[in-house]
Amino acid sequence: MTAEHSAEHPGGLPAGPPVALTIAGSDSGGGAGLQADLRTFTACGVHGCVAVTAVTVQNSVGVTAVVEVPPSTVAEQIRAVVTDIGVAAAKTGMLASASIMCAVAEVCDELGIGRDRVVPLVVDPVAASMHGNPLLAEGALALLRSELLPRATLLTPNLDEVRLLVGLDVGSPAEQYEAARALHAWGPRWVLVKGGHLQDSAHDVLYDGREFTVFTGPRLAVPHTHGSGDTLAAAITAALARGAAVPDAVSYGKRYIAQAIAHAYPLGAGVGPVSPFWRLRPD
Amino acid sequence: MTAEHSAEHPGGLPAGPPVALTIAGSDSGGGAGLQADLRTFTACGVHGCVAVTAVTVQNSVGVTAVVEVPPSTVAEQIRAVVTDIGVAAAKTGMLASASIMCAVAEVCDELGIGRDRVVPLVVDPVAASMHGNPLLAEGALALLRSELLPRATLLTPNLDEVRLLVGLDVGSPAEQYEAARALHAWGPRWVLVKGGHLQDSAHDVLYDGREFTVFTGPRLAVPHTHGSGDTLAAAITAALARGAAVPDAVSYGKRYIAQAIAHAYPLGAGVGPVSPFWRLRPD
Repeated sequence: MTAEHSAEHPGGLPAGPPVALTIAGSDSGGGAGLQADLRTFTACGVHGCVAVTAVTVQNSVGVTAVVEVPPSTVAEQIRAVVTDIGVAAAKTGMLASASIMCAVAEVCDELGIGRDRVVPLVVDPVAASMHGNPLLAEGALALLRSELLPRATLLTPNLDEVRLLVGLDVGSPAEQYEAARALHAWGPRWVLVKGGHLQDSAHDVLYDGREFTVFTGPRLAVPHTHGSGDTLAAAITAALARGAAVPDAVSYGKRYIAQAIAHAYPLGAGVGPVSPFWRLRPD
Repeated sequence: MTAEHSAEHPGGLPAGPPVALTIAGSDSGGGAGLQADLRTFTACGVHGCVAVTAVTVQNSVGVTAVVEVPPSTVAEQIRAVVTDIGVAAAKTGMLASASIMCAVAEVCDELGIGRDRVVPLVVDPVAASMHGNPLLAEGALALLRSELLPRATLLTPNLDEVRLLVGLDVGSPAEQYEAARALHAWGPRWVLVKGGHLQDSAHDVLYDGREFTVFTGPRLAVPHTHGSGDTLAAAITAALARGAAVPDAVSYGKRYIAQAIAHAYPLGAGVGPVSPFWRLRPD
């Protein structure tokens, strides 16, 4: 994949880059949420559009406040972007509440976003911040399962989210396969169960209902991993926007996140973020 | 300036990049607002933090809705970021309402952000979208003048904003000097009056109360300039965060925006955005 424009307009102007949409919350600290998505899209050469679901007051230590955006405004942002600009792939992050989740599900159906539709949808089932602060209202979890999972082209849970969604406490790589099966039964086209800290290498399992594909990457002993889940899902979404098939997009995302983690940096008193800066040309 | 980390931590981890904060609204279309700021900060190798002031429903054609964030939440985002992460420079974009403006002025004083304080503040006096949609509530303009201008390290108005702020209808380069004087009298340390379409070259006038410095850049005949004001102010802010003096930061910003405009791309039915993608390494 290349960051160059892919075609020329008849008038000589370059055609635009691929476009991806994130439906996510704002992290004021800039390391996660829509900020992680936007900087990842940018670093992948993809134009990022944003439907803001919530504004969090957040830094490297935790989340101290969440203000939700009205569900109708979330839907309107998506509609304004898709009907005018058009998007080639979409991603959900923090959906905050049951009513936002329903509004997103409805507008995705209306606009052809999701599993077996024109625009693939990556669902990163965000339920809590890495500090354990809740990012999903109580009662919204059941709706995440029943409304979002069946609409997902790709679901990207970590092991905490696996536990919340299907009650499985994955303690071994073998149990990742079981988790992938249980999650796939809820309807996503593909499931990527991220192995996290299970073993020495980052061992993620992709499942489409028939075959398992294992992606391994270096497991780097860095303390700064804020936004790594968002960044991986955003890089996968960027690759989908560029036209990649799901397994190739996951492979691209894994390569991207390995570099981003390798270049992570400290920030504030707590956990610093993974970095997009390795993608820049020297000045 | 370089995107590399500037120092090594004692433990061997790289020190973080410089940090800049934008206090701005969200543009769902991704070309302006906090999105333009974040992608510019990223492309300049600077970590971007964000205090969201408002969520707009916006695409390439215009703005159809604005939802404001509570003023106390705007202030809390700034406080959370500055007290934990620390910021080396800050920038204001869309401030939406009089009460948000007062909250921002107060928290900037509390945290040492602004003219003659530790953290320089770039005030981009956003009053309307490029389509003419208002981004500032009625009555807030007087407060922008009385509360924000005196706190600005650098004020970056375009000619429409000059007209709104000091009632001058600049029609010639000579009148830019007069506008700079009139704006400087309101208290900003530096004023950059952007010449826009006045003549064949982009002719911007920087004034510190004593000397005028003129910055000229190529005037490119591209139709896609969405987010160019935000992007210039963000690139200047990024350079300030890296330690540049104001004239050098403006010079850096002008070089950055010339490239971003040269690489602007179409998007949607209306006006496309300026581009950060020329800063990426080839894949």
